[in-house]
Amino acid sequence: MKLIHPGDPRGGPQRSVFFVSESTGITAATLGHSLLSQFEQAEAFRTIYMPYINNMEKAGNLAARIDGLMVKGEMRPIIFATMPKTDIRECLKATACLYLELFDTFIGPLSKELGVGPSGKSGLSHGIVNGDSYEHRMSIINFAMANDDGARLDKFSQADVILIGVSRSGKTPTCLYMAMHFELRAANYPLTEEDFEKGHLPQALLDNRDKLVALTIDPFRLHHIREERRRGSGYASLPRCRSEVQQAEQLFRKLGLKPMDTTRQSIEEISSRVVRSL
Amino acid sequence: MKLIHPGDPRGGPQRSVFFVSESTGITAATLGHSLLSQFEQAEAFRTIYMPYINNMEKAGNLAARIDGLMVKGEMRPIIFATMPKTDIRECLKATACLYLELFDTFIGPLSKELGVGPSGKSGLSHGIVNGDSYEHRMSIINFAMANDDGARLDKFSQADVILIGVSRSGKTPTCLYMAMHFELRAANYPLTEEDFEKGHLPQALLDNRDKLVALTIDPFRLHHIREERRRGSGYASLPRCRSEVQQAEQLFRKLGLKPMDTTRQSIEEISSRVVRSL
Repeated sequence: MKLIHPGDPRGGPQRSVFFVSESTGITAATLGHSLLSQFEQAEAFRTIYMPYINNMEKAGNLAARIDGLMVKGEMRPIIFATMPKTDIRECLKATACLYLELFDTFIGPLSKELGVGPSGKSGLSHGIVNGDSYEHRMSIINFAMANDDGARLDKFSQADVILIGVSRSGKTPTCLYMAMHFELRAANYPLTEEDFEKGHLPQALLDNRDKLVALTIDPFRLHHIREERRRGSGYASLPRCRSEVQQAEQLFRKLGLKPMDTTRQSIEEISSRVVRSL
Repeated sequence: MKLIHPGDPRGGPQRSVFFVSESTGITAATLGHSLLSQFEQAEAFRTIYMPYINNMEKAGNLAARIDGLMVKGEMRPIIFATMPKTDIRECLKATACLYLELFDTFIGPLSKELGVGPSGKSGLSHGIVNGDSYEHRMSIINFAMANDDGARLDKFSQADVILIGVSRSGKTPTCLYMAMHFELRAANYPLTEEDFEKGHLPQALLDNRDKLVALTIDPFRLHHIREERRRGSGYASLPRCRSEVQQAEQLFRKLGLKPMDTTRQSIEEISSRVVRSL
C-alpha cells in the first residue's frame, strides 16, 4: 500500500483524498485505499495522509485547507476518517468534502451485539497495548532479520515457518511481512547450486520439515527481477534462471513439497497464502 | 496487528471473529481489528483469518463451521468481510453470525460522488497492480535491509530518510515498516561510543542533514529492551543506557535535531510520526 500518491501527472482537475485520524491513521488509510482501488479506472486520486489530527486547532487548519482546494478549482475532496472525537468530526464534516466515517457505521451494531459501549479511545489498534507485546513483536522482527538468507542454520528449530526457494523468489519480503503482521517467527533459506548438486537439503532444514514452505517463480520473471539487481550477470541470465527453477522444483517434488508460485503475487498475497497453508 | 489470536486462556464461552475476504483479507482484518480494539474491555475474542474465500464450496464450508460453533455453545460469531460476490455474501449472511460488510456501506456514496460504478474486482488493494510497482517495492525493501545498522555509509545519498539513535531505540523495525507501507527508502545509523567521543557524525550523514530523523528513548525502557537481548551485559546495564541516551541527546542538540521519543510508541506510531515530519 502506498499511502502518499502525487495524483495524475497529466494535469487537469485533481481530486484530493485525505486519510484522517486522531492517531496513526493506518486503519483509515487501509480501508480508504481499498475502496479507492475500486474506482481507479475513473480518476487518479491525490492521496494525503493526515495522522494525529487530535485537537481543534489541527482540525480547523485541515478544514481550511480542504475548503481552499475547492476555491482553487479542484474537484470535491474526499475524507476517509476514523475519528472518535465528535467536535473534530463535526468540524471536518462542515467542509465541502465528502466525509466517510469508517468507525461510526460499525460501532453501533458491535455495541449492541456485545452489550457494552466502545472505549472511545483512539490509537488502540496500532498503538502500544502493553510493553510486553511490543517487545515480543520487536523480537519477532529481529528474528526475521537475523534469519534471513539462511544466515543461521541452528535457529530453524525456533522458527514458526521457513521459506525455501531460489534467490529472488520473494522469500525475504514475505518473511518480513509475516513477522510484522502475523507475528510469525519467519526464517528463510536460499537454494543454491550446492543444494542442487547434493540433491538434498541441509539436515537442519530436514529436521524442521513440517515448517517448510517452498516458493517457486516463472524463470522469465526471475530473470527480469535479477536483471534489475545485477544487469548482464550470469546470475541474472535466462538459462541460469531456468536451470535453477527447474532444479528447485525437482528438489521440492523429491521432498513432497508443493511449491507456491509467486510470479503474479504481491507480498501480501504470498504472505496470506503461506499463513493459510500452515 | 496480530491477525491470529487464540482467545481467552481463562476458558468460559468464547466468541469467534472471522476476517473473511475473496482475496488477502488484509483490509477486512485491519478494520475489524481496529473496531474490536474498541471493545477489548468486554471480551477476549478468538480471531480467525480466512482469506481467499472465492467460491461457493469454500463459503459453504465456512458457513457450516460458523453454525457448528453455535451448536458447540459458543457465543454468536462475528464476521468482518470485504466480499464483492453476492452469492458468497448471502451464504455467509444466512448463518447465525453477525455479518458486517465493510465495503458495501461506502461503495454507494463513493459511486455517486465519482459518477461511476465500482470495478467489482477483488484483491486490487493488496494485489500486484503491475510488475513495475512490485519491483519498485521489492527494491525499496531490499534497500532497507542493505542499509540497516549503518551498513553502507556510501548509500545515504539514495535514502529518503535516515534514522539515527542508539542501539535498540527502534530504528530497524521503523525502517522496515516505512519501506513496506510508505514506500520510503529508509536507512538507519546506530550512534556508538566512537561517535560520542568524536562529538560529531560521519561526513556521509552530515551531507544528508535534511534526511536525518533522531530517535531517543527512556533509559529505563532501553535497559529493559537490551536486557531481553543480552541479559546482564554491560551493554544492557542501566548506567550504560543512561550515558548513551544522554550523549545521544547532547549530539542531537548540537546538530539542531529535535529527537522523537519512541518510549511509549508502537512501530506504526513511530513510522507515522517520522513520515509526517518529513
